[in-house]
Parts: sequence; C-alpha cells; structure tokens
Amino acid sequence: MRIAIDAMGGDNAPECNVEGALSAAAEWKDTQIVLVGDEARLAPLLKNKPDNVSVRHAADVIGAEDEPVKAVRRKKDSSMVVAGRMVREGEADAMISSGNTGALMTTGLLIVGRMQGIERPALAPMIPTLDDVGVLALDLGANMDATPQHLAQYALMGSVYRSKVHGIQKPRVGLLNVGTEPGKGNELTKEAYPLLENLAGIHFVGNVEARDVLTGNCDVLVCDGFAGNILLKTLEGTAGAMFKLLKEQFSRSLKTKLGAAMLMPELRSLKGKMDYKEHGGAPLLGLSGLVVKGHGSSDGTAVKNAVRQARIALMADLVPSISKEISGK
Amino acid sequence: MRIAIDAMGGDNAPECNVEGALSAAAEWKDTQIVLVGDEARLAPLLKNKPDNVSVRHAADVIGAEDEPVKAVRRKKDSSMVVAGRMVREGEADAMISSGNTGALMTTGLLIVGRMQGIERPALAPMIPTLDDVGVLALDLGANMDATPQHLAQYALMGSVYRSKVHGIQKPRVGLLNVGTEPGKGNELTKEAYPLLENLAGIHFVGNVEARDVLTGNCDVLVCDGFAGNILLKTLEGTAGAMFKLLKEQFSRSLKTKLGAAMLMPELRSLKGKMDYKEHGGAPLLGLSGLVVKGHGSSDGTAVKNAVRQARIALMADLVPSISKEISGK
Repeated sequence: MRIAIDAMGGDNAPECNVEGALSAAAEWKDTQIVLVGDEARLAPLLKNKPDNVSVRHAADVIGAEDEPVKAVRRKKDSSMVVAGRMVREGEADAMISSGNTGALMTTGLLIVGRMQGIERPALAPMIPTLDDVGVLALDLGANMDATPQHLAQYALMGSVYRSKVHGIQKPRVGLLNVGTEPGKGNELTKEAYPLLENLAGIHFVGNVEARDVLTGNCDVLVCDGFAGNILLKTLEGTAGAMFKLLKEQFSRSLKTKLGAAMLMPELRSLKGKMDYKEHGGAPLLGLSGLVVKGHGSSDGTAVKNAVRQARIALMADLVPSISKEISGK
Repeated sequence: MRIAIDAMGGDNAPECNVEGALSAAAEWKDTQIVLVGDEARLAPLLKNKPDNVSVRHAADVIGAEDEPVKAVRRKKDSSMVVAGRMVREGEADAMISSGNTGALMTTGLLIVGRMQGIERPALAPMIPTLDDVGVLALDLGANMDATPQHLAQYALMGSVYRSKVHGIQKPRVGLLNVGTEPGKGNELTKEAYPLLENLAGIHFVGNVEARDVLTGNCDVLVCDGFAGNILLKTLEGTAGAMFKLLKEQFSRSLKTKLGAAMLMPELRSLKGKMDYKEHGGAPLLGLSGLVVKGHGSSDGTAVKNAVRQARIALMADLVPSISKEISGK
C-alpha cells in the first residue's frame, strides 16, 4: 500500500514528517511512503533513504495562517493539495497531514471528494478516557452546524471506524447532551435522539453528559462540531490550567519541592494520559478516500503513529465498509 | 430587606438552609430572613431563633426528581413556589433556593415573572479562573437554544450584574466560540458577533475559546445554554477525573504516599480553586425580582454566601438597573 505524507504540514515540518516516514518505512516494509513537498528541502534530510520511501515534489505550501478555501483553490501545487490529488487519482491509498486543519478539511471535500450518500464528512479524534481506552468523538470541527441526520451519519461512520480499526465488536454510541434522560437537550439533540435510537447498525446507549465523557462510558461520542470543540478545548484548557497550578503550588517551599520531586514520574504519566494529542491522528470520515489529520504539534513519533493508523484502516477496508453501511440506509 | 429562603430545597435540606439563615441573620441584623417550609420540621431546628428569622409555612416540597413545569403548576403550596409568590407580591425582596434547578427556573418564569423587555431569563453562575477573579457565564442552562438577540441580552444583563454586584467598572464581555477571529463559529455565534460588537453599554472583547476561559480573559462569558452546559460539565468532569487519577497515582508506593502527604495542603487548595460550587450562588437574571440558585449540595456556608450575594444585589439595585438598561435599548 502507498501512503502519501504532506511533508510540509505541521509546526515541526518537514523534519517531523521525514522522521516519521523513515521510522514507519523501517517497521513496515510492505508500505510505500511518499513524502510530498519541496524536493530541495527534503533531499538533505533523506540521505539514507530506504527503497520504500520516495519524494513527490510540490513547490508550494499551505501555511497555518492561510484562509482554507482560498488556499486550497489557489495553491494547486501545495504539498497538501498534491497529496489529496494523489488519493483521488489512486496514486496513493491514504494521505496524512499535520498542516492547517481547515485547509485539510477543504482538501478532503474539494480534492479527495465526499463519499456518495454522505452529507457532511466529520473529523473524528480520540478523546482520552480514564480507562485508557479512549472515545472516538465526531464531529470535532469539520462542520460547525449539524442537522439530526448529520448526527446519525456520524454515528454510523464512527461505529464502522471503531469496529474496523479498533476491533470493537459492538461499539457503544453516545449522544453528547446536557442530561441523560431522553427528553433532554437543545432542538438538535432532542430530534437526534429518536433517530439514533431507531438506527439499525449502531448500538445506541443514549445521552452522555460532558462530565462523564472521561469515564469512558461509550466508544463513539456523537456531537455537532461546535459543541465538540467546546468539549475538547475545555478538557485541554482545564488539564493545562491544573498542571500550571500544580507547578506553582509545588514550587512554594522546600517541602513542596521535595514532595513534587518524589511524585514526578506519576505527574508526568498523568500529563500524558490527559493529552489528547498523544492519542494518534484523527481520521476525516465520509470522504471517498482515507485522510488522516495529525496534530499541528506532531513529532516524528506522532507521524509514525498516524501511518500505523492509516495502515490498519486500509487493511480493514475502512472506506468501502463505511460506504456500504451508508448506502444500505 | 427581606430575603426568603426555600428551606426545603437542596440535598442537605432543611438543615443547611436553617444553618445558613441563622448565620446570615447573626451577621446582618438589618436583614429579615424568612425560612419557607414545613413548620413542623423547621421548629425543632429553630429553638433559639433570633428576631430577624421567621418561618412561613409551606406544606409541600418539590423534589429533585419532579418534572419542573408540572411540579410548579401543581404544587402551589411547595416551599419553592411559596417563596416565589412572596417575591412577586413584594413580601420578600429576593428568594434563594438550592432545590430542583428546572423547577426554580420555572418558578422564576411562571411565579416571579419575566422582566419586561427580556425574551429569555438566564442562569448565571461564576466559573473559577486561575486569577481567582472568576467569570460570570450565562446562559448556563435556563434555555437550551438561543438566538443572537438572546445572547445580546445576556451580555447586557451580565455586564450590569458584574458592575453592580462585583464593582467592575467596565466588565469585559466575551463570546464563547471555537476560534478568536470574528468570522469563526456556528450560525448563532457568527450572527451574534456583530450584534455584540455594536451593542452600546457593553465592553465587548470578542470571541473567547473554551481553553482560555480559565485564564480569566473576560468578566462576562456569553453562550447558549447547551454550549454553556458542555463547558461547565467538562470543566467539572476533567478536574474530577484528574483528582481521581492523582489520588490513584499518589497511593502507589510509600514514596508517592510520602510525597503526596507533603503536598496535601496545596492539593486541597487547588481542589477548592477548581470547584465552581464554592463560588457562590447563581443569579437567575431577567426576572422582575431577584432569584438566586444555590448549588444542590450547598451547606450552611454556601447558603449564607448566597444571602450575602442577594444583599449586595439588592443594595445595588440590580433588578431595576437591568430593567433600565434593557428598556433603553
């Protein structure tokens, strides 16, 4: 299989992407990795290039500040758009990018193309849970507004992903809501509830409150992109704020410094646990090809993990399986 | 001034309400406290009742499980509804209840009554921030769906509250959103942004991302009730989960136990800091009288703090000030 990596995307590009590509190529000999980007910048980093790594030149780059739709339309030779075109034209089986999120979603829609029957593709990262299993949340930002029908499609796509990629037999689907009772919520969630309840092919477990998401009581969490963003960013902000406060409190006196030093490995492990960025790339579901978004601050390990994820999804026939599930409805 | 307390509302009722009432009455001799509830249950707790505490008998109670609208309509002799009626009829200047939140909002709307010119009253708790100042967030659950016009009214009411009750001269108003740039958001926030930007009488500082709320970059945070609930519950859930994890990690070995013991006062202080329940009662803004919601798990101190809050709001003419601000628009 061939996986295209947008070599110029991400805060640490192109180094992180080259490092991830080399390490993935070493581990999976059956996988061809194509680094898409500026040949002149990539060549010095690829002096000992193995056979299953190649470079596809792309002269342009979409930056973090670029306006997504404009950038994708105009920068036809950017590494991200070229990688997308490779997927559309069957030159690559999947693409991975840690670049501008909005531009990647636009590349997915305009270049790779929407899957037939899907109204809105969805971005689906894993949110960490206390039991370390994690929950796949979607949509987390591809579409700010959603209809109940969109939420039903998210539920289907998320279920297929969890079963195909993570091997969960009957993924539990929860609806992000303000209370657990069926009648709770805003207009969107009140209408979505009976739709999900009656949807064949998913195992709906009802409403899930935001405070319970971390306890891992579902495998797929369905929400509109706005609410999902509030959830994820609050989680990130609260964890960050608490670590900042702990650090302040723990450097107050010799006694607290000593206590903190004794707890350092435990504190570090907790920090890793709460960091959703460490939980792999986020697939963009509902496209006619496989697109995986890495986090902007991805390092080589994160890029390699995204390759691992893409391989599993490809081997499990993720995209055809979603298509089959959707067309069956 | 006279403040009615729903003596039967809250997990620890009636004891917490009696304790809070007695302690408030002792501190503020100018304040008449009326405990509304079952006389037979209250009498034994009020053996040494000071002159400024009295009981108004109410035979019935609205429970935590009661369906709000039905309960308020049918239980006309419940402590909550009787307290609401006292406010409407001028027998009390304010009411405080730690009972069923939905029922209290219904009591506000149906019994106390909406302020003229207000489309939707809003529940406005304080969310803790790292600088200990806190941010008043509204709406946090009175209405699940909102229009841009509702958000503009929330902004006005929140600004008046922060300036009158907390003495902030020019409260900074932020709009909860998924990015800081003006064009970001869902349909609601995209339409609300220019409305807030052009609203006389508030100091709008733009969009605020969920991850930055805790850093205290605004004094009033405006959002619809659904998004607000996701924010508050995620904050609560994340903090709770982290304390649970810390506890687990810290009891792993003798070394970690010793380290944790050395840090105990700091950990406790952090826990208090992150607990929004410790940040006083939440006013229900936009009613024709003052209604303050205490948290369900309120103890005597929390009830006393709610009385303190109600006193300040009454002395500062909060309700007439909001009415003046709204009718001027």
